[in-house]
Amino acid sequence: MARPSAMSGFPELLPGQRLVEQRVLDSLQQTFELHGFVSVETRAVEPLDRLLSKGETSKEVYVLRRLQAEPDDDRGETDSASRLGLHFDLTVPFARYVLEFAGRLEFPFRRYQIQKVWRGERPQEGRYREFTQADIDIVGRDELAFHHDVEVARVMAEALAALPVPPVRLQVNNRKLIQGFYAGVGARDVDAVMRVVDKLDKLPADAVGALLVDEAGLDERQASLCLQLAGIRSADTSFVERVRELGVTSQLLDRGLEELAAVLEGCASVAGDRVRVEADLRIARGLDYYTGTVFETVMDGLEHLGSICSGGRYDALASDGRTTYPGVGISLGVSRMLVPLLAGGRLSASRSVPSAVLVALVDEGSRPVSDAVARRLRARGIPVEVAASPQKFGKQIRFAERRGIPYVWFPDPGTGSTGGQVKDIRSGEQVEADPDTWRPPAEDLRPRVLTGDAPNDD
Amino acid sequence: MARPSAMSGFPELLPGQRLVEQRVLDSLQQTFELHGFVSVETRAVEPLDRLLSKGETSKEVYVLRRLQAEPDDDRGETDSASRLGLHFDLTVPFARYVLEFAGRLEFPFRRYQIQKVWRGERPQEGRYREFTQADIDIVGRDELAFHHDVEVARVMAEALAALPVPPVRLQVNNRKLIQGFYAGVGARDVDAVMRVVDKLDKLPADAVGALLVDEAGLDERQASLCLQLAGIRSADTSFVERVRELGVTSQLLDRGLEELAAVLEGCASVAGDRVRVEADLRIARGLDYYTGTVFETVMDGLEHLGSICSGGRYDALASDGRTTYPGVGISLGVSRMLVPLLAGGRLSASRSVPSAVLVALVDEGSRPVSDAVARRLRARGIPVEVAASPQKFGKQIRFAERRGIPYVWFPDPGTGSTGGQVKDIRSGEQVEADPDTWRPPAEDLRPRVLTGDAPNDD
Repeated sequence: MARPSAMSGFPELLPGQRLVEQRVLDSLQQTFELHGFVSVETRAVEPLDRLLSKGETSKEVYVLRRLQAEPDDDRGETDSASRLGLHFDLTVPFARYVLEFAGRLEFPFRRYQIQKVWRGERPQEGRYREFTQADIDIVGRDELAFHHDVEVARVMAEALAALPVPPVRLQVNNRKLIQGFYAGVGARDVDAVMRVVDKLDKLPADAVGALLVDEAGLDERQASLCLQLAGIRSADTSFVERVRELGVTSQLLDRGLEELAAVLEGCASVAGDRVRVEADLRIARGLDYYTGTVFETVMDGLEHLGSICSGGRYDALASDGRTTYPGVGISLGVSRMLVPLLAGGRLSASRSVPSAVLVALVDEGSRPVSDAVARRLRARGIPVEVAASPQKFGKQIRFAERRGIPYVWFPDPGTGSTGGQVKDIRSGEQVEADPDTWRPPAEDLRPRVLTGDAPNDD
Repeated sequence: MARPSAMSGFPELLPGQRLVEQRVLDSLQQTFELHGFVSVETRAVEPLDRLLSKGETSKEVYVLRRLQAEPDDDRGETDSASRLGLHFDLTVPFARYVLEFAGRLEFPFRRYQIQKVWRGERPQEGRYREFTQADIDIVGRDELAFHHDVEVARVMAEALAALPVPPVRLQVNNRKLIQGFYAGVGARDVDAVMRVVDKLDKLPADAVGALLVDEAGLDERQASLCLQLAGIRSADTSFVERVRELGVTSQLLDRGLEELAAVLEGCASVAGDRVRVEADLRIARGLDYYTGTVFETVMDGLEHLGSICSGGRYDALASDGRTTYPGVGISLGVSRMLVPLLAGGRLSASRSVPSAVLVALVDEGSRPVSDAVARRLRARGIPVEVAASPQKFGKQIRFAERRGIPYVWFPDPGTGSTGGQVKDIRSGEQVEADPDTWRPPAEDLRPRVLTGDAPNDD
């Protein structure tokens, strides 16, 4: 078969890049589990009617069909309740999972979910047809206290701070705050105002101001106040004072200000150079059904990728008609964040294999000796491979070098597997060593993640 | 939306079951990496022509189509070169990956791949429409020394031995051995003999003997010799002598005997009670294109699930017409192995959340104190959650009990976050503790996997 070529929108990683991704996923998992979040995986497919109940994303769904489906089998596959599609996010399947297993879950239920999702979108940088997301959500039955909003913000901020990626800005706002403010200025159609303000990403402020008058029915003074609100941003709770100075009041606004201030205060112990947490009163997440806290996140210098990590509070993440499950969560776009950094060489691994040691081979007859050395090293948790063939030692060393393996072990077949010498091929230093006691420095045990523009700067 | 029900063939796990699966996957990953295997993930989709090039499995492929594909977009999606299907194993996509990235890989290339695959089969126990596989393969360019056959057998045996599953029997045979034997007895159509012998799983020996005469063109004596060969099984290299006693000779048979003996000898250091490695001369893996070593594996007491772990040597895992990539590998059916054990309660987790400690809440006003205790414990790697609401302590303890969390921490808001008491709610023992120094016993730090028929026997 001919040599295959890459498929646009379906990024695949080379082994060294995958090692970086694994390290990132391990780090996320570790942070989430330290906070008591448990892993859930849902099947990749959902009934089409469930996927389409959100509406907006219907264009992006991949529908499945068995290649050799019999006409009879197919009958059941023509209506959207029994047709299957690939999930396009992890929220819809998680909401379904909560409903399906509610009787066997304990609430509030904290889960993280790291899986691939699929969207038939036109591919571009940071937008793929297959990509990995890492979501955290906390879900309650009937009610979910507000402090969980603070919790998910803090957990994700902590998770982001531990990653080897550029610093990020976690931008927080609150729907109650902006909706209460719009109501307070006298807007009749609060949602229309929100939809227009959401365009500040793409349009200049005066154009948005004109739309607020033309489309959202505000007068000039009201429009000006809404634009002033959207311009407020602060890394502490000083935004409260600035909103008060605009002279608008409503109960809902008060509640929103209080909640947003609590999120910022709650994140103070986590925020720092790696993750800046800011109130940004422009954020609305227009198309989603959020009812309180909302989040977006951008990476410094990579703002053009858009938000890599978004979410918020839903008063009804899921409902079966009798019971409602409120939730709050954030979804990290792992591929959107990592693939551009890997492709640009800003993130790489110190080697392309897990092996910390290559055990050299003196001759094919002494392979059992090399194998035994490897076994002794592995028994103490050191990743090892044995040379494929008894080439000259210079060639075996170059083989290790090409893979970035830092150490080559030279067995001494005369003494069996108990002795030998180990060489750090970076420094050239070579010492006598015992495979039952020698170990590499901790930083050499696993491949390291290298940051910066020099991918092989080891 | 109505309460959803389970979808046949798409098993999903409850949190405690997923914790067991994660522990199994971690263990596999650890063994594979200790042997220098690197993780690869391929996209879930392949062009349909690549998926169908194997032939036999065409019925099982799920084909994708974008729900709102435009007629124009669709033009390119009608021929099998640009239509996409979900992969049904990890071998076809890996072979494509090797061809696509050959110039950027180092050979011999050791990779493991743990991913979901999809088949539109009729679901039954151990057979699903979506399931997880864990594959290891070693691939060479142009050539791959035989000792790698021994290596993959040893690595998978070691991986299986470390899992909390019933003991397994890894059955090994060699295509050269059986094909050389069939040629040696004078069979004209060696493949036909192999296909018939493969039916010993389903038919009694005398029926297979009759088919060998009727369909494979053997005479009674030849058929009898082939059945005698298929009956040979040994946990050591004594099978060689028993084959010799049948008086059949051929060069290919000699080579096969030598290779199979080498695999058994090479696995001797790993084989034990948990994994028995046996030469089983009945194994053929009839429909696959193996050319030497072949593997199958059954779990004790769960033989009805069929082989949970199979593979072998391909002389051409992949080829682009100019370069051929031989390979040897084994694929473990993680879902086939685990789902029946989880569903039957033979495997469970000691708790349903990662949290080792629940920090109790005295009142809502002292939440910052409880949060600070949690932060101090997490800083030393202890998974912690804080109580959702300041219920009576008895209720908070029962909340921990329901999740299987072994410890409840009672902060002393009077002293800030530096003190308190911690209670082992299993024994009732309660002691003064400092969140900067206290730690649970190592066995309580993470959920444990419980084996046996009593799922909550903690």
